[in-house]
Amino acid sequence: MQSETSRIEAFSDGVFAIAITLLILEVKVPASPQGGLGAALLRQWPSYVGFLLSFAFIGIMWMSHHRMFTLIKRTNDTLLVLNLLLLLGVTVVPFPTAVLAVHLGGPEEKTAAVLYNATFVIIGIMFNILWRYAVARRLIDPSALRSAASMSRQYAFGPIVYLICLALAWVSVKASLALSIGIAIFFALPPGLLVRRK
Amino acid sequence: MQSETSRIEAFSDGVFAIAITLLILEVKVPASPQGGLGAALLRQWPSYVGFLLSFAFIGIMWMSHHRMFTLIKRTNDTLLVLNLLLLLGVTVVPFPTAVLAVHLGGPEEKTAAVLYNATFVIIGIMFNILWRYAVARRLIDPSALRSAASMSRQYAFGPIVYLICLALAWVSVKASLALSIGIAIFFALPPGLLVRRK
Amino acid sequence: MQSETSRIEAFSDGVFAIAITLLILEVKVPASPQGGLGAALLRQWPSYVGFLLSFAFIGIMWMSHHRMFTLIKRTNDTLLVLNLLLLLGVTVVPFPTAVLAVHLGGPEEKTAAVLYNATFVIIGIMFNILWRYAVARRLIDPSALRSAASMSRQYAFGPIVYLICLALAWVSVKASLALSIGIAIFFALPPGLLVRRK
Amino acid sequence: MQSETSRIEAFSDGVFAIAITLLILEVKVPASPQGGLGAALLRQWPSYVGFLLSFAFIGIMWMSHHRMFTLIKRTNDTLLVLNLLLLLGVTVVPFPTAVLAVHLGGPEEKTAAVLYNATFVIIGIMFNILWRYAVARRLIDPSALRSAASMSRQYAFGPIVYLICLALAWVSVKASLALSIGIAIFFALPPGLLVRRK
Repeated sequence: MQSETSRIEAFSDGVFAIAITLLILEVKVPASPQGGLGAALLRQWPSYVGFLLSFAFIGIMWMSHHRMFTLIKRTNDTLLVLNLLLLLGVTVVPFPTAVLAVHLGGPEEKTAAVLYNATFVIIGIMFNILWRYAVARRLIDPSALRSAASMSRQYAFGPIVYLICLALAWVSVKASLALSIGIAIFFALPPGLLVRRK
Repeated sequence: MQSETSRIEAFSDGVFAIAITLLILEVKVPASPQGGLGAALLRQWPSYVGFLLSFAFIGIMWMSHHRMFTLIKRTNDTLLVLNLLLLLGVTVVPFPTAVLAVHLGGPEEKTAAVLYNATFVIIGIMFNILWRYAVARRLIDPSALRSAASMSRQYAFGPIVYLICLALAWVSVKASLALSIGIAIFFALPPGLLVRRK
Repeated sequence: MQSETSRIEAFSDGVFAIAITLLILEVKVPASPQGGLGAALLRQWPSYVGFLLSFAFIGIMWMSHHRMFTLIKRTNDTLLVLNLLLLLGVTVVPFPTAVLAVHLGGPEEKTAAVLYNATFVIIGIMFNILWRYAVARRLIDPSALRSAASMSRQYAFGPIVYLICLALAWVSVKASLALSIGIAIFFALPPGLLVRRK
Repeated sequence: MQSETSRIEAFSDGVFAIAITLLILEVKVPASPQGGLGAALLRQWPSYVGFLLSFAFIGIMWMSHHRMFTLIKRTNDTLLVLNLLLLLGVTVVPFPTAVLAVHLGGPEEKTAAVLYNATFVIIGIMFNILWRYAVARRLIDPSALRSAASMSRQYAFGPIVYLICLALAWVSVKASLALSIGIAIFFALPPGLLVRRK
């Protein structure tokens, strides 16, 4: 028998997979390769930074979603709606990524970076609302209450970190991006390292 | 064992997930940001309204489809065809959304709003045909006949509401959109609220 | 336990779902709506014809694939490759559809219609190769040999019909399209009618 | 019960399916068909070569991934991250394909061919890292250790072959592409042939 949440997971996986794959459509073939194609490709570095960062963040969100739904065992209409609100944030990502790619290094990069980070602040908040609702309504596996509490603490961390990136963008876009890259690497690496050491 | 309807659900989930994620491709990076990127982004509000409304409507349709197929237990070729006709409507949505985003606030917004609402009237009718066929052919779980009857009444409501939006667009596009937004919020919220009160 | 073919089906469903949903991206918002948006939308009828025909054909192919894999129980590397060749045909469809949409009604419509129909002739041949291989290698459910034989006869019909459409395009593109539309309706309707009469 | 790796497989299948289907979006309708549409379509041969090669390579990668995960039985966070890095490579493919399609036959084709082959070298390396990690951490079916060892030898072959294509592109882009096409056919055919002879 299929579990009660399997179709939400399938639909969410679809949206995550499409959003993460559509990102590459915003990396355009250089139009007029002055000074050679190699140079033209290198000049497009903001597109690659945007692509890689957004890929990393959507990938991390997918892993969190995956982990969340290994604990969530039951579903209801509110959970469906909260999950859709989270997916709304995920599907939006290609747009601020494209805005960032066009404006990074230009005079309007601050606005682009704020928009970019604001998107992830909102997604982070959605994540917390979804998770806290699932815990409060006892939709999670009762035997997993302890790891649920530790996940709650971890998820609360998310929007705060993105908010720091956003604030930092007002001071320096480069510093904000560097912090974003650091976060992506931090989120991606430690769990694996921890598992290895166990 | 996989249930008889699981591959229809998987294919439908795929189409819903792709259609809802492609919507963002119609939100373009502002070309010539006169007066600053922030102002240029704000001037694009019709794109955001179209995106959010269509996201909400496709999301609601997915939830309805999900609910429908928790009751539909058997399938046949006619159901496959009726489901494809419903999905035809869903895949079309990015087009009227793009037309609305381009023309909202312009002299042709009435035509765009009529096209937009007509799409959802037709999808609503498809939904009713699919559901009524499944009930009439006894493809649904026999123990769920009562909740099936209540769902039939609910679904009949859908195309009528979209038809009112369409008619209202002839009088005022703004009022029609406001009603659409109201419907999206109404459809998304109450089931959750009802579940909570149970 | 997952069946041996479930991941092929999942991957194929994904490709069918994406190919059928991408078709709408070729229906563009009319650029300069001379004589009103309504007239500009109507002038785009070749786009809608192409979209609807290709949607119908991909939908019918999905149903055939679905039916095929309810009988195919085992898999091997050759079947994976033959299935990929079939999916190659399916993913190509948006291209000849776009060519048809641009050139239908223009001086080059004959070339566009030949390209369009040739795509489906090739897909039809791929379908037959895949199916005949599965039958010959006894990858299908042994209890389904009789219905397999009837399916073999049915599938052989496919490329012949598309070849007739292709040949007819040399004489008259309109007649060819009319036949295509007739085929789409014929393929979509009869099974349902037959089921009803049983 | 769903297997532990089923959601990774579902997400990966989604990404593979979308990446392979998006490739066709880079094959554009010829803009100004000088000398007839037929000639204009033929002049686009670099787009078709790029599309077919990338389709073949993504298809082969999907088959390898599929085969790998029939042996991988357990998962952990590091495996999720390594799988995401592999998928990062897969989602990138439409970009170097588009660059190749634009520049093949032009003065910059060498740079385009190097970029194209470099992408597959990196994906091949990712594949090896993922697989070797799964073997080393004993995430694979213990009864499959022998076939795992033979797969390790096979996978090591991948990046080397792509590296030869890359090196060959410095000498002759045509020879490099010919080798790529040969590899695609070799990878696609032999397993089927071997199975038949068993």
